Amino acid sequence: MVISEKQEAGCKTNQDELIQKMVFPEGILLENGQKIAPLEIAYQTYGQLSQAKDNAILICHALTGDQYVAGVHPITKKLGWWSKMVGPGLPIDTNKYFVICSNVLGSCLGTTGPRSIREDITQARRWGSDFPAITIKDMVNTQKILVDSWGIERLFAVIGGSMGGMQVLQWAVSYPDQVYAVIPIATSSFHSAQNIAFNEVGRQAIFSDPDWRDGEYWRYGVSPYRGLAVARMMAHITYLSEDALSRKFGRRLQESLKDSSAPIFGEMFQVQSYLQYQGSNFVRRFDANSYVTITQAMDWFDLSQTHDGDLVKAVAHVKSRFCVISLSSDWLFPTSRSRAIVQALNRVGAKVSFVEIATDKGHDAFLLEEPDLDITIQGFLSGIEEQRRLENYAS
Amino acid sequence: MVISEKQEAGCKTNQDELIQKMVFPEGILLENGQKIAPLEIAYQTYGQLSQAKDNAILICHALTGDQYVAGVHPITKKLGWWSKMVGPGLPIDTNKYFVICSNVLGSCLGTTGPRSIREDITQARRWGSDFPAITIKDMVNTQKILVDSWGIERLFAVIGGSMGGMQVLQWAVSYPDQVYAVIPIATSSFHSAQNIAFNEVGRQAIFSDPDWRDGEYWRYGVSPYRGLAVARMMAHITYLSEDALSRKFGRRLQESLKDSSAPIFGEMFQVQSYLQYQGSNFVRRFDANSYVTITQAMDWFDLSQTHDGDLVKAVAHVKSRFCVISLSSDWLFPTSRSRAIVQALNRVGAKVSFVEIATDKGHDAFLLEEPDLDITIQGFLSGIEEQRRLENYAS
Repeated sequence: MVISEKQEAGCKTNQDELIQKMVFPEGILLENGQKIAPLEIAYQTYGQLSQAKDNAILICHALTGDQYVAGVHPITKKLGWWSKMVGPGLPIDTNKYFVICSNVLGSCLGTTGPRSIREDITQARRWGSDFPAITIKDMVNTQKILVDSWGIERLFAVIGGSMGGMQVLQWAVSYPDQVYAVIPIATSSFHSAQNIAFNEVGRQAIFSDPDWRDGEYWRYGVSPYRGLAVARMMAHITYLSEDALSRKFGRRLQESLKDSSAPIFGEMFQVQSYLQYQGSNFVRRFDANSYVTITQAMDWFDLSQTHDGDLVKAVAHVKSRFCVISLSSDWLFPTSRSRAIVQALNRVGAKVSFVEIATDKGHDAFLLEEPDLDITIQGFLSGIEEQRRLENYAS
Repeated sequence: MVISEKQEAGCKTNQDELIQKMVFPEGILLENGQKIAPLEIAYQTYGQLSQAKDNAILICHALTGDQYVAGVHPITKKLGWWSKMVGPGLPIDTNKYFVICSNVLGSCLGTTGPRSIREDITQARRWGSDFPAITIKDMVNTQKILVDSWGIERLFAVIGGSMGGMQVLQWAVSYPDQVYAVIPIATSSFHSAQNIAFNEVGRQAIFSDPDWRDGEYWRYGVSPYRGLAVARMMAHITYLSEDALSRKFGRRLQESLKDSSAPIFGEMFQVQSYLQYQGSNFVRRFDANSYVTITQAMDWFDLSQTHDGDLVKAVAHVKSRFCVISLSSDWLFPTSRSRAIVQALNRVGAKVSFVEIATDKGHDAFLLEEPDLDITIQGFLSGIEEQRRLENYAS
């Protein structure tokens, strides 16, 4: 099915030459019945695939993440988003494992998304807001096309946090024979009304930006930067715990105001400029249509939906070993959500362990320095490796 | 000091004729040293002031509230925002008490605010974004001007929730001899980094609306409705608990989509249209500059600020009886904030009782049907009335 490795079609910049990708001309049939063809998948791998093709670990990134999980990001020149976790000698050890991470369907770092040029119609145009409404399962199916293309019959593990964790759960449910073990982190089996509400406000901020132009902003050489920045700022608050924000900034004033005894009109507190920095930094690297597309996929996510709302039924046929991890101060996807997953898995006799990491850093803690998380992941991977060895020996 | 009762200057509409107000030509000296003169205060009263002027209860409204605490709102024709609490025979019984509520300084329902015409300069123009940065204490000082004008030497009680609670605390600290009792509800003695962060995102949404025009939108006959609606939608999420949102909406789809098995681009869930309704409804009644001004006053609020960050020192001279009330599922101003207030009050030997109302409705529960809240307020008021009778008898 693979025919070539090429630059991101029609969106070519100097940056794009740095992105590794594969093109699948047959494309993908989406859950909503629409077809996207050709399908481009941008990915990055670390380590070597063993001859038996049994050491592959797929890492699934979160809403605004990308395929550069480790090493140095070829575009930003910063370290990959999980470089403290993935690399030689690290908990996800690239000396042992072949680590794969691909940019999710609908995103904007090389995989087909709203910014890509449509090739299914005659006139040259980007998908823009005509990009189909996709699902977490569509993202997983995209990853499966990539993994299958390498002849990997079973992934040793699928690991991811937040929206990455949703993909992890979907993998275990949709492809039970293809996943030996899974580690869903700081995630949920569904998006709650509050989760949807926060995403909706972010989208409305984008839609209210006049540069949104019904999602056709690319035609006019503009982008709804202001709306997207507001969306990012708001989402960023939900990624941190109240304690983390207090510790980081408290009520500290801007340097210029530090002896002020009365308020001024404008920016007073350090937390304000921090948030503005988060917003403006983000819009340089992310596409508004991708943000809308991916947040909608998250909102739609509910593992139990196709099983009359019964999570137990949804997980009835899983075969993977689970290590479910939650973060104690995560208020976006609180521990209760992980517990619900574990309870459903227990109900069907799945192999499941559950760890709540004690941290006061909030949802984003899985991306930060958390020794307990490293120990948990490393320990689980070692354990299942040993287990698989015994199983292979027995059979 | 009172010279006349007149319509809201320069902003006269048919609606304004319905608003009761007083004009104080000497104006008010703000904390930042600026003077606003004349000062208009729009207010509403319920019940009769006793001859001894000892039965006045001041109610302080929240960020987007107004003076119409009970009865029917003369403009919206809806019931006042606390009409389940204030009225004849209700917990705050207008058969017994003279209830006062005034529109806060900086707001937009009659009291001087950014929408008012400046009278301190020659050319006719509204304050707009030149309106001074005000504080919660400036709001309280405005209320004091009104209360003093009636010759009320001591308020029987000052009661309010959320930002209203901040004013309540400020009254007790700034004017210990003028307040017999206070009931701060669902509030905090300071705005935390997270509180500031949410307000900042709201303001940024307003500032990114091109119709904001540096706050001079009134010159152009426009208003940053879209930005203000986004700010309101986001704030609204913080007023509800996750449980309340889940119970109200869960993941229920829009009627038109209810048999859908795949996502669409656009509005899918009922919670989305609910939020959009909240946003669009709000912009019809509120002014963007007022929203910016008042949220900044909240952000600036920290009772301990003028006492080296020591809340105990800040409350050292209070004389009022306190009934501190928190709401168990309030995540905007969680119970821990109320507890900190109570601990500081205990430390200085103040008369304080503390009730955490068990509710799963979140911050806004104080505005909703909560029988325990009614019982608590009614019980406390009866108790202090009895106490005062005994004191008067003894003296």
